[in-house]
Amino acid sequence: MDDKFQKTTLAEFEAVFPKLEADILEHAQKYKLPAAELEWFKKSLQTNAIGGKCNRGMSVPDSVSLLLGKKLSEEEFFQAATLGWTTELLQAFFLVSDDIMDSSITRRGKPCWYREEGVGMIAINDAFMLESAIYTLLKKHFRSHPAYVDLLELMHEVTFQTELGQLMDLLTAPEDKVNLDNFSAAKHSYIVIYKTAYYSFYLPVALALHQLNIGTPENLKQAENILIPMGEYFQVQDDYLDNFGLPEHIGKIGTDIMDNKCSWLVNQALEIATPEQRQILEENYGRKDKDKEAVIKKLYDDMKLEQRYLDYEEKVVGEIREKIANVDESNGLKKEVFEAFLAKIYKRSK
Amino acid sequence: MDDKFQKTTLAEFEAVFPKLEADILEHAQKYKLPAAELEWFKKSLQTNAIGGKCNRGMSVPDSVSLLLGKKLSEEEFFQAATLGWTTELLQAFFLVSDDIMDSSITRRGKPCWYREEGVGMIAINDAFMLESAIYTLLKKHFRSHPAYVDLLELMHEVTFQTELGQLMDLLTAPEDKVNLDNFSAAKHSYIVIYKTAYYSFYLPVALALHQLNIGTPENLKQAENILIPMGEYFQVQDDYLDNFGLPEHIGKIGTDIMDNKCSWLVNQALEIATPEQRQILEENYGRKDKDKEAVIKKLYDDMKLEQRYLDYEEKVVGEIREKIANVDESNGLKKEVFEAFLAKIYKRSK
Repeated sequence: MDDKFQKTTLAEFEAVFPKLEADILEHAQKYKLPAAELEWFKKSLQTNAIGGKCNRGMSVPDSVSLLLGKKLSEEEFFQAATLGWTTELLQAFFLVSDDIMDSSITRRGKPCWYREEGVGMIAINDAFMLESAIYTLLKKHFRSHPAYVDLLELMHEVTFQTELGQLMDLLTAPEDKVNLDNFSAAKHSYIVIYKTAYYSFYLPVALALHQLNIGTPENLKQAENILIPMGEYFQVQDDYLDNFGLPEHIGKIGTDIMDNKCSWLVNQALEIATPEQRQILEENYGRKDKDKEAVIKKLYDDMKLEQRYLDYEEKVVGEIREKIANVDESNGLKKEVFEAFLAKIYKRSK
Repeated sequence: MDDKFQKTTLAEFEAVFPKLEADILEHAQKYKLPAAELEWFKKSLQTNAIGGKCNRGMSVPDSVSLLLGKKLSEEEFFQAATLGWTTELLQAFFLVSDDIMDSSITRRGKPCWYREEGVGMIAINDAFMLESAIYTLLKKHFRSHPAYVDLLELMHEVTFQTELGQLMDLLTAPEDKVNLDNFSAAKHSYIVIYKTAYYSFYLPVALALHQLNIGTPENLKQAENILIPMGEYFQVQDDYLDNFGLPEHIGKIGTDIMDNKCSWLVNQALEIATPEQRQILEENYGRKDKDKEAVIKKLYDDMKLEQRYLDYEEKVVGEIREKIANVDESNGLKKEVFEAFLAKIYKRSK
């Protein structure tokens, strides 16, 4: 990696947020929002936008720095970090609402926002306001940027793509109704690509390209062709680690089996299951029952799903590496951007 | 009114929707959304976007026609109706989610979308997709329009304003916690202006001005100065009719008193109440109890709130008429646009 490149730290990235929070709240104050409501909005922003690992957000300044082949000036970093924070706000919008739709209990080690005292369904409107904050920031900081319209359209498009993935997920794997006929490797692929890969992998790089006015259709297409398979691989890893990872590494105890998740593992199992194994899956998957979960875990071991994952990983990473090697850099795109993403996730254990 | 003007009928306006629905679904199909999910999205669009009175939506073509002083060409009408449908989609986005937040039971005479079999909290994502459809349509039909950025920013802004109004409403009048100290005429005014007036009154005219490329800051400001008080008046009427209107006219039996609504009426009552009357309000407002509701209704009569409303109406309509008389028409704005709005609502009984 270029030694002029300097990777953004979480502290540097988070240090930008207070300025952006002030911009967002100032905008609400323009409409004379009373103090109690302003305080509510501030608490929602602080609880829901901050506190994550910010991998998506930080990859905007990292990508801009790799694309420019230099450490960023203060102004360049601020712009890139602002775009990075719009990805974090988009994620916050989705997480707050997904937690309601999934009846989740905790998020980042704390109760989900909708489960906080006095919040409840107001969280839906709070989610909307997190989304609106994206456009407040883009208008304030990018209105005169040549790629302003591209930035707005990109954000709209990725938002819609994520909603399509969420719809597919909700209709495929309702938590309370187990029906393995609903699952398929193709559906799994659709869900992870739309629900996760676009906003987590493609969006940050597309934003970086637009910041530098090199978001040409060709560059964006090349980025998409590499980052979407990479995002899919990332989510497959997540599914793999949920069962095969070490709780002390992944920071939680996996619950995908009991939660009836349309995971990569169960879809692989369904593809290769004998009729007897299928029967075992039908009778034990998606039940809130530790013994049934153990039966599935044993079945996954019998079916050698860990090795199947490792084979998949080698294959897909090989394909991604080949695509990266073939990147056309003549219009400002750089292979290093993709290499940096891949290095962060290849063989990760958490 | 100009005799070259021809008021849009609901049938004409609704006739445009199938084309727009096809645009929206085609956009989802571009992402290879499977048939079951596509069908779901279609049903959500048809249930939630269609079936209302479309007063907001139709006022876009009506305003464009009045501004041009002529019957619209097919192309002009299609453009204006498309913008009109974006206001209906925005409303659908809010109604689907407001019904969840308010635990509402019915909407337009049918069960609320989230209460339909199999929908539940998926309705949250459906609401998001209704919002996304706005930007799909704007991109498809207005990408090369000179006011494209203005249209996008207007939509973002009005969305945020409505969310601020909804937040204020949710924090001021939680259905289950009666606290009249929370209410005030000033808060009522804030809620109705932000939650209703911007998207229902200002937005359609602002869209019409942008369609014709006369959405100058001056014209928009004049429109806002007239339409926001008019929207507030409209919502005060709604609150008045909830209690004093005839159920056979308004098509429902008012429930604001039992629902603890921060209505114009209760705020007026609180302003003029004697200590004894305040006590009656405290003890009877916001209870799910027909007898207590009757006590409040009697109190409203004793306090002569009907006359108070009629006095308010004359005063505010007088002020609005004066503002309309003073409109500067030199940059393409027309008094008739506002007169048409006012004629539709003055002294309405439903």
